[in-house]
Amino acid sequence: MISRDDVSTPALLLDLDRFERNLARMAAHVRAAGKQIRPHAKTHRCPEIARRQIAAGALGVACAKLGEAEVMAGAGVRGLLITTEVVPPGSVRRLMTLIAGAPDTMVVVDNAENVRALAAAAAEHGVVVNALVDVHVGARRTGVEPGAAALALARLVAGARALRLGGLQGYAGQCAHVMGWKERRAASLAAMTPLMETRALLEREGLPVEIVAGGSTGTYDIDVELGGLTELQAGSYCVMDVDYRRIGGRGGEMLTDFEMALTVVATVVSVAPDRAMVDAGLKAFSTDKPFPPEAVERPGIEYGFAGDEHGRLTPRDPDRAPRLGERIEFFPPHCDPTFNLYDRVHVVRGSRVEAVWDIAARGRSD
Amino acid sequence: MISRDDVSTPALLLDLDRFERNLARMAAHVRAAGKQIRPHAKTHRCPEIARRQIAAGALGVACAKLGEAEVMAGAGVRGLLITTEVVPPGSVRRLMTLIAGAPDTMVVVDNAENVRALAAAAAEHGVVVNALVDVHVGARRTGVEPGAAALALARLVAGARALRLGGLQGYAGQCAHVMGWKERRAASLAAMTPLMETRALLEREGLPVEIVAGGSTGTYDIDVELGGLTELQAGSYCVMDVDYRRIGGRGGEMLTDFEMALTVVATVVSVAPDRAMVDAGLKAFSTDKPFPPEAVERPGIEYGFAGDEHGRLTPRDPDRAPRLGERIEFFPPHCDPTFNLYDRVHVVRGSRVEAVWDIAARGRSD
Repeated sequence: MISRDDVSTPALLLDLDRFERNLARMAAHVRAAGKQIRPHAKTHRCPEIARRQIAAGALGVACAKLGEAEVMAGAGVRGLLITTEVVPPGSVRRLMTLIAGAPDTMVVVDNAENVRALAAAAAEHGVVVNALVDVHVGARRTGVEPGAAALALARLVAGARALRLGGLQGYAGQCAHVMGWKERRAASLAAMTPLMETRALLEREGLPVEIVAGGSTGTYDIDVELGGLTELQAGSYCVMDVDYRRIGGRGGEMLTDFEMALTVVATVVSVAPDRAMVDAGLKAFSTDKPFPPEAVERPGIEYGFAGDEHGRLTPRDPDRAPRLGERIEFFPPHCDPTFNLYDRVHVVRGSRVEAVWDIAARGRSD
Repeated sequence: MISRDDVSTPALLLDLDRFERNLARMAAHVRAAGKQIRPHAKTHRCPEIARRQIAAGALGVACAKLGEAEVMAGAGVRGLLITTEVVPPGSVRRLMTLIAGAPDTMVVVDNAENVRALAAAAAEHGVVVNALVDVHVGARRTGVEPGAAALALARLVAGARALRLGGLQGYAGQCAHVMGWKERRAASLAAMTPLMETRALLEREGLPVEIVAGGSTGTYDIDVELGGLTELQAGSYCVMDVDYRRIGGRGGEMLTDFEMALTVVATVVSVAPDRAMVDAGLKAFSTDKPFPPEAVERPGIEYGFAGDEHGRLTPRDPDRAPRLGERIEFFPPHCDPTFNLYDRVHVVRGSRVEAVWDIAARGRSD
């Protein structure tokens, strides 16, 4: 048996008990709400996690990129939705190959030129491409404007012989991290309303809308209020992170509906009176948030980034100064880009490493 | 022939002409200064780059971590110096295996307990560990205090049968990015002086000091003024980045002694009147600096991070609005953690991809 303490540091650890409870809670939530979930695999990029999400009732997984979807499909995961438009000609060809092997794969579109390119490639390759119209709901990222523009694009998709209109997607990323549940609820329902209106418009015009996908971990218990939404795309709920925990939940100042299941374990490799250095720096944690990693049940220290490979622990309690060789776990600020730094995740139950899962789609942003 | 425009995006590109000139310039510089260089491989984690640095005259490469050194040694690279203390018992065992295969490998030490552990393990494994005393020169990272404390630790190393005292290391990371060459020169010479004094102290006490290692790309033409320094550890010079370019050089407001040889190529995947989205976000670029990636010879746009997989281009010139499918290259803010996001780097000369090099030590922070 390999112990949690035997893993070389820095390493990514997944607490299996917490992870399993997170999956079960989300499954019960969407079931009770009469919705579905296609969790975002960009969070973890790990086929084994995707398989477990599907075993817990998910429809499949959303993939941020084609490359991520190729890895998931290669690992036997089905029910894929690629949530970024596939545009370069070489990528469109790869998409056709992917769909030939995994025909239920869906893509999103927000541009007529891209729709025509997909239609031509699909016809040439003898496949049918399932497409959702990506509707802009305020994140200022991708998506066609709701209403008439979305309708026009949906008609283009529906009219192309080698395309199949599956419905709509709208990701209101600007709402995911709004602090405070009430404020977040107001923001998300307002942002998503035009998507629901677009759904109604398409249906009035006789276009099929089987799927309306959206939502995040921050709005998982908000967007289910939307009658027109069919499936959530939340990703981070499976492991959580400091960023999502601090946005607050329905019941309190922290979002504790899902448990913090992901940590990075580091070792103290140098000690001095005013500091101790751990072997985990900005190649071991995401650095895109304005707050640092947080020590897990290890009071008396504060972590600060100190270069590629080092974190500086400032001792706050003279009785609990870090010792040379001490192992300390930290919650990463942001789970998605932290997963993306590691080739594997060590899966622990208590003190025991039960498995090592490949983060096989790591780096596959292409 | 694969063209630069055929590479799936986002991808990491290395401009071979610029890279080769950077290597030649640094080689000429250290030769003229009567010094040596053991470039930091943490910048690139790529054995092929290490081999080319050594072919250009480098003594070997510095590795931030044991895991990085294991990959380099496995690829046949010799002359390794591991610049972070190797502390956990499992890592100490791995180090002995590494040294058995690559006996000229060096480590750094800053703690008596660690020295004793290394000495015991080396004796047990029948190897000799070459060690430099890591001296704290103000970076508040690793290192024993200069002077008496460093001397005592050097004595401990010199007195251990299975250890061999190679000399000293001092990394003044706080000076590497001081803005303005004169200010940086003053800061670095002041910071490094105690290291030189420690060298003199050890020599007076009869301890051998063959190597005194230190310096960065920011101080490459400053630290060579230090008579007692024997080798530089600069890393970023081989490809440069936005961060190092902006610190200024001896001759001007930008550090242009080395050329910007590393880019990330991205594709525009969505366009709207007020924005265009590229497929490269915070999984495609380092995010540890307070400034964004910089478009290369592509005026009229400004890049902003917009999530894991997206960058938002704000058009600043209506005549040069990004087009769907347009490929745009960006200089990454910080080269080291950007290399660490990619499994490979595409090596280009003009429009032609000449090679694809594995970033084989990517993720090997352990």
